[in-house]
Amino acid sequence: MSKGKLLYAQSGGVTAVINATASAVILAARAKKIPVLAAKNGILGVLRDELMDTGRMTTADIKALAHTPGGAFGSCRVKLKSLEQDREKYEKLLAVFRKNDIRYFLYNGGNDSADTALKVSQLAKASGYDLVCIGVPKTVDNDLAVTDCCPGFGSAAKYTAVSILEASLDVAAMAETSTKVFVYEVMGRHAGWLAAAAGVAGEGKHDAPHIILFPEVAFDEAKFLQAVEATVNRVGYCVVVVSEGVKDAGGKFLAETEGSKDAFGHSQLGGVGPLIAGLVKDKLAMKVHWTVPDYLQRSARHLASKTDLEHAIAVGKAAVEYATKGMNGVMPVIKRISSKPYRWKVEPASLEKIANHEKKMPANYIRKDGYGITAACRTYLTPLIAGEAPVPYGKDGLPRYSKPLRHGK
Amino acid sequence: MSKGKLLYAQSGGVTAVINATASAVILAARAKKIPVLAAKNGILGVLRDELMDTGRMTTADIKALAHTPGGAFGSCRVKLKSLEQDREKYEKLLAVFRKNDIRYFLYNGGNDSADTALKVSQLAKASGYDLVCIGVPKTVDNDLAVTDCCPGFGSAAKYTAVSILEASLDVAAMAETSTKVFVYEVMGRHAGWLAAAAGVAGEGKHDAPHIILFPEVAFDEAKFLQAVEATVNRVGYCVVVVSEGVKDAGGKFLAETEGSKDAFGHSQLGGVGPLIAGLVKDKLAMKVHWTVPDYLQRSARHLASKTDLEHAIAVGKAAVEYATKGMNGVMPVIKRISSKPYRWKVEPASLEKIANHEKKMPANYIRKDGYGITAACRTYLTPLIAGEAPVPYGKDGLPRYSKPLRHGK
Repeated sequence: MSKGKLLYAQSGGVTAVINATASAVILAARAKKIPVLAAKNGILGVLRDELMDTGRMTTADIKALAHTPGGAFGSCRVKLKSLEQDREKYEKLLAVFRKNDIRYFLYNGGNDSADTALKVSQLAKASGYDLVCIGVPKTVDNDLAVTDCCPGFGSAAKYTAVSILEASLDVAAMAETSTKVFVYEVMGRHAGWLAAAAGVAGEGKHDAPHIILFPEVAFDEAKFLQAVEATVNRVGYCVVVVSEGVKDAGGKFLAETEGSKDAFGHSQLGGVGPLIAGLVKDKLAMKVHWTVPDYLQRSARHLASKTDLEHAIAVGKAAVEYATKGMNGVMPVIKRISSKPYRWKVEPASLEKIANHEKKMPANYIRKDGYGITAACRTYLTPLIAGEAPVPYGKDGLPRYSKPLRHGK
Repeated sequence: MSKGKLLYAQSGGVTAVINATASAVILAARAKKIPVLAAKNGILGVLRDELMDTGRMTTADIKALAHTPGGAFGSCRVKLKSLEQDREKYEKLLAVFRKNDIRYFLYNGGNDSADTALKVSQLAKASGYDLVCIGVPKTVDNDLAVTDCCPGFGSAAKYTAVSILEASLDVAAMAETSTKVFVYEVMGRHAGWLAAAAGVAGEGKHDAPHIILFPEVAFDEAKFLQAVEATVNRVGYCVVVVSEGVKDAGGKFLAETEGSKDAFGHSQLGGVGPLIAGLVKDKLAMKVHWTVPDYLQRSARHLASKTDLEHAIAVGKAAVEYATKGMNGVMPVIKRISSKPYRWKVEPASLEKIANHEKKMPANYIRKDGYGITAACRTYLTPLIAGEAPVPYGKDGLPRYSKPLRHGK
């Protein structure tokens, strides 16, 4: 009896471990003799009927995905609107599903894709087409509702904490005659999860990072500059972590990266890191350096967290399990059982509770002065960055990553 | 019979493996029963008679240095001028040496410190004070003369190649609807060694990085934009590596990071990465992202190259060997015996040949079109980033690095 095929698609920004989820999905489906197609560049590939047959991949190929960053099949930033507004596209999706005998749709993304998966499942039901839709979580932003954490976050968090620790040792060594203030810009436009992760790097009063600027805390220039100066006086240098989403008291992003021009009419793609660095230089006349790791923080598979990798694999396996059990409209989420020792399980959650919601940092995770994390936050974060997940290296000193299965073009 | 003490000092920008050299020096000297002092914050500590007794460190402490980035004793950016101009300081150094019975001075730095070590040795000789001065090489810039490569460079090179490889997989996955052009800024104000290292990440025509902008090649805006556009048309995206030292046809740095102000009079600390990104956005109207890893590239001990670590340890050991043999005014340098297989040895070179010289990239290491590396360059670079040198991690998921022995203050 044919159970039809399973379609797997990636959505939104990729992570260091999203391919580990893909790998787990394909292996679990193979074990159940279900053929797996993968959409090229996410939902766009479905709309165009550009589906890749993973049956052509060897088991070794699929296993190699588990240690390869990026998105093996391509992803995209496309959000479908409501069923009414984008009816034609939803109908097209369903037509492609019918044509390819797709009976399971696994959509690996954030809350937008949870929403899309939910709507597709509703339309299929209304159309009398037998289809199970499952959302599979991923996002470095860690802002999905219901789940304790998001696969992808732990590795980006580990990258951030380790990078801060390492760079701070450099700054400490040189501070007397060189850089006094080091500014590190992290991702997280709406929530300060990755900024908080930097806080794990140090624990004592003198440890870096000395100041974290969260999107959740309105930026106060005078107070900030005072804190920087006091830190330099006390420690000899100051390491500042700034979230790209930091806003002023009026709720405006400090760095409006789009649209700003310099005196010659050239685009200024400054970002908030160099902006804060410029402020320190101008107002405190101290030597500053800054870094913007950008995509490095979400693609550094060589520094992935073992916990994160295990989560990514577990949600992939569970998604196939739920799919074959006919559990339509759910997402496998991470449920924390205890922090010390860290214990967790995967359980299903309704997509309705996840779609279009956003999880902010709890207020009790941010220190009273607004510049650091609390013990509760550290307890939450530590298990997520724990454990290493080394990649295989070649003789040339580079990780043996799979080549992209498709080029962007 | 007392042989006196050995003084070790770090100079200039620190690296991921300079503490491995320190560790090797201390262990080798201990084996010869020579007490080791370490200057706090480099030559400044010597001038102030701030010398730390490494005798207080346990063997475990010293071994832990070998996997800790930064500069354990502190470093500084201070260059002594000529004997005539800075006579007073040189005399002060010698006075501190006499006072502490220092008979061996090991100065771990670049060509400036080679020069200082040389002058100190000359002054000591003229003063009838028995002192052996040894330069010990380090610099991520790889621009020291005579030596085949510099300890510190291989690890920064590995960081660069791995980061480019990882970020490119991310960009490849997202390019259809997101970032088309990704710009990565590397260190190297005078020579393109680290920019070249990025080139190791890809080999085929479609592989990233697609364009490398070297300080050795004058920037041609029209030609560059044409190359970016052609790459995006061919591959779907374009990864650009730009050296901070890139200059225009007139020899002026593209990014004059100091002194530039925006319309409000605030300092623009843009760097050449965001500048190139802004250019692409303005002229080609493509979505761009950029990264400036800054200090991360020279402190990422977690991603150090095994070859580099071995070099760093070997020059430390050899420096003590040369010192106790009375080989005044030399530096242990890396001599390459063969590339395939990679074989090397350490040998002494006269400080006179190293002091104040600078090694540029050979012309035959840069591809004819100016945007990539040649096979000869790849053959040179590959062994330097080969092998991994993992760090120990704690249960908290962070590397177990030694705390700085001193704070900057």
